[in-house]
Amino acid sequence: MGERVFGIDESRIWSDLMALAEITDPARPYTRRSFTPLFQAGRDWLRRRFAEAGLAVRLDTAANLFGRLEGSEPGLPTIMLGSHSDSVPSGGRFDGPAGVIAALEVVRALQDDGRRLRHPVEVVDCLAEEPSDYGLSCVGSRAMAGLLSAEMLDLRNPAGERLGDAIVRVGGDPARLAEARRSDVAAFLELHIEQGVVLERSKTDIGIVTALVGIIRLEIVFEGEAAHAGTMPMAMRRDAGVAAARLVGFVSQRARALAGAGRGYVVGTTGVIDIAPNAINVVPQRARIVVDTRAEDAALLDAFVAEIEAESRRIAEETATVRERCTVLSRATPASCDPDLRRLLAEGAAACGLSSLALPSGAGHDAAFLSRIAPAAMVFVPCRDGRSHAPEEWAEPAAIAAGAVALLEAVERFDAKSPDRAAA
Amino acid sequence: MGERVFGIDESRIWSDLMALAEITDPARPYTRRSFTPLFQAGRDWLRRRFAEAGLAVRLDTAANLFGRLEGSEPGLPTIMLGSHSDSVPSGGRFDGPAGVIAALEVVRALQDDGRRLRHPVEVVDCLAEEPSDYGLSCVGSRAMAGLLSAEMLDLRNPAGERLGDAIVRVGGDPARLAEARRSDVAAFLELHIEQGVVLERSKTDIGIVTALVGIIRLEIVFEGEAAHAGTMPMAMRRDAGVAAARLVGFVSQRARALAGAGRGYVVGTTGVIDIAPNAINVVPQRARIVVDTRAEDAALLDAFVAEIEAESRRIAEETATVRERCTVLSRATPASCDPDLRRLLAEGAAACGLSSLALPSGAGHDAAFLSRIAPAAMVFVPCRDGRSHAPEEWAEPAAIAAGAVALLEAVERFDAKSPDRAAA
Repeated sequence: MGERVFGIDESRIWSDLMALAEITDPARPYTRRSFTPLFQAGRDWLRRRFAEAGLAVRLDTAANLFGRLEGSEPGLPTIMLGSHSDSVPSGGRFDGPAGVIAALEVVRALQDDGRRLRHPVEVVDCLAEEPSDYGLSCVGSRAMAGLLSAEMLDLRNPAGERLGDAIVRVGGDPARLAEARRSDVAAFLELHIEQGVVLERSKTDIGIVTALVGIIRLEIVFEGEAAHAGTMPMAMRRDAGVAAARLVGFVSQRARALAGAGRGYVVGTTGVIDIAPNAINVVPQRARIVVDTRAEDAALLDAFVAEIEAESRRIAEETATVRERCTVLSRATPASCDPDLRRLLAEGAAACGLSSLALPSGAGHDAAFLSRIAPAAMVFVPCRDGRSHAPEEWAEPAAIAAGAVALLEAVERFDAKSPDRAAA
Repeated sequence: MGERVFGIDESRIWSDLMALAEITDPARPYTRRSFTPLFQAGRDWLRRRFAEAGLAVRLDTAANLFGRLEGSEPGLPTIMLGSHSDSVPSGGRFDGPAGVIAALEVVRALQDDGRRLRHPVEVVDCLAEEPSDYGLSCVGSRAMAGLLSAEMLDLRNPAGERLGDAIVRVGGDPARLAEARRSDVAAFLELHIEQGVVLERSKTDIGIVTALVGIIRLEIVFEGEAAHAGTMPMAMRRDAGVAAARLVGFVSQRARALAGAGRGYVVGTTGVIDIAPNAINVVPQRARIVVDTRAEDAALLDAFVAEIEAESRRIAEETATVRERCTVLSRATPASCDPDLRRLLAEGAAACGLSSLALPSGAGHDAAFLSRIAPAAMVFVPCRDGRSHAPEEWAEPAAIAAGAVALLEAVERFDAKSPDRAAA
C-alpha cells in the first residue's frame, strides 16, 4: 500500500486501473465490450475487489453491479458512487473504470480509517454505458431511472440476440426490471475523465460539472442531379454537394455565435459528410450529412435545431436541390447537476488545495440518467490532449487521485450535513 | 439501304451503331475497353466496314485505325474525320462510335454519289480516348500530335503491363512512334454527342464547338484536429470538414460569378469530398477534396485556380487548420476550334435547314490534341438529358444523321474552297 494523501491512495487506484485494463481483447487494446466474456471477466475481478473492501456485492435485475457498505443509521437513503467498466472497441483504460475505481477507493479510504458514515454507500458499475452492440447506451442507468423500455429490451445485436436476453446472460432479470428502479438514492456522484482539453489547457485540478448537455442529432439528405462536371453550365446545376457544404458552414458559424451569446455551452458538429457518386468529373447527385448539436439550455438547443432545419430548406431552394430528408436521429434532454452537491465538491476540493472549475459535460454519462431520480453531480479529471475512446487515452495517476480526494471530501460533507434522519 | 437525306443514310448509321454496340461485355453493357479483346473485335468489325466502303485500311505506329479514300489531286493534305470506338466501363453506345460511324457515313455518301474530292479523306478511330487502365486518355490523338512521351509509354495498368507493350499488342509500334505524328492534315472534324443539355433544352439540331475547355484539377487536403463533438468548445476547434465545406462553397460561388463575366465558358466542380474519421460524434480531422475547374480562356482559368489556391490558404488560417496539400493533379490547356471550319459547318447546316448553336465543349476530346497540328472543329449532337458514360446514354437516329449532314456539307465546302493545290 502506498502513501495516502487526504485519505486517498494514488498507487492503489493506479494498480487497480492497470490490472483491470489487462482484461482486454489482446488484438485490440483496450476493448472490453459490454455483454462479452471479457466484460464478465472484468466484473469478476471487480467483485473480488469489492469483496476485499468489505462491501456486500450484488447485481440488480438490470445487471448493474453494486458493492454496498451499510451506514450507521439504518434506513437512510444511499450515497451512490461509480461509473462503468465497459469500453468502446479499441478504447482507453480510463473512460468508465476511473470512476468505478475512484468510487471504490473512497470506500476503502473510509474503511482504512475506520470511519462509518451515517448513510449507506454503494459503489456501482453501471451496465453498458457505451453504445452497445444492441444500439443503446447507458442501459443500466436507464433502468435505475425507470427509463429502459420494453421496446429497448427488444433491440437486437447484429447476431440477432435481444437486449433483454443479453441482460439475462450477464445475470439480470428483465422480467423484474421494475425492481432495478431506485427511489432510495440520496446522492449520485460520478468521477470521469473530461474527454476534452479545458482542464488540461487551464491547468486546473478538477472540473465540477454544471450540466450534461442535451444532444439532438439530425440527418439531412440533399438530392440534386448528377451531371458532367465539364458540360453542365453553372446556372443549370443542381449540386447536392454544394448544398451540403453550405449547411456544414452554417452549423459551424451559428454554433460559434450561439456559444458566445451567454446562454451556456453550445456546440454544433457535422461529423459525417457522404456525397455520391463522389467522382472527380461528376456534379454530386446526393449528399448526406449528420449534424450533432449539443447545449446546456434545452430551449436554446431546440431553437438551434429549428434554425438548421429552416436553413436546410432555404439552401435546397437556392441550390435547386431537393431536401429529401431532415430527420431527428436522436434526442437527449439536458441534465442539470445538483447545486448543493456541486458546492460540496468545490468546498472539498478547496479544503484540500485543489483548483477547480465549473464546466459543462459535452458528453453523455450515466449521471444524466441518475439525475432523473436523485441529486447528481460529476467530477472531471484532466486527460491528455482531451483524447478518449482511443488506446492513447491517458490520465495521470495524481490527477485521478485528486478527483478521488474531491469525491471523498464531498461524500463526507454530504453525510455530515444531510438533513436525512434515520427512520424512526 | 434506307432513304438518304442530303446524301446521308440515317438507317445505315443507326444499324452500324447498334451492331458495334453489340460488341460489349455482356455483363456490363456497354463496355468495350481499349486494349481488350472486345476492343479488337470492335476494330475488326470497323475494318470490314471501312473496306466495304472502299477505304484503304491501315494502323499507324500508335495503333490508330484509319480508312483512307484518295483524292483526285495527288499530294494534297488530308481531311481527317473521326472519333474513337473505346468506351468507359458500363458506358454508352454513342460517346465515340457516333463520331466514327458518322465519319464513315460521310465517305459512303461521297462514294454513293460517285463524287471524288480533291483532298484525300481519312476516317479515324483514335486509340484509347477514354481514360485507359494505364491512367492516360487520348493515347492515339496525343501520338498524332507528337505529345505521347516516353514517360507515358512507361505507364502501367493494374496488372503491371506497360502502355507501350499494350500498344504493341493492338498492332502499334511505339519504337517508331514518331511516324505516327502527322503534318499532312488539312482539317480535322469530329462529331460527338454533347454530353450536356444545352442543345436538348434549346431544341437546337447541332452544336458547333467554339473551343475545348482547358481543365485544371486541384487536390486540396486540410488537416485539423480530431476531437469529441461534445467536449471540444467551438472556439478551440480545428475542424477540417468546415474548412473543406467553405472551399466547396467558394469554388461554386466564384465559378458562377466568372461564368457571368462575359469571358467565355467557366465551370468549377467539387466532385470528391472525403472526410475522416467521418463519425457522427467526432470533429473531422482531415478533409480531402478534388476541384475540377474548366474554362475556354486559359488566362481566366489560371486566375480562377490562383483564387482557389489563395482562398484555401485564407480558410486554413481562419479555421486553424493546416492546408496540408494543394496540388495540381492535371492540367490541360484550352484548344480553340478553327474559325474557318466553324463557319463552314454553320453555313452547311443552315443550307440544309438545320439550326445550330455555337457552344464550348466542357469535356475533352481527341479534337483537342489534333487542334495542335491542324485546323480542327467539332459538331455536337443532342443527347437525352445530357446523360453520358452510362448505359442510358441516348441520341436520336435523326439527331446523329443531322450532325453527319453538317459534317458532309463542311467537308465538301472545305474541299471546294481550300487554297490547297496539288504538288507540282
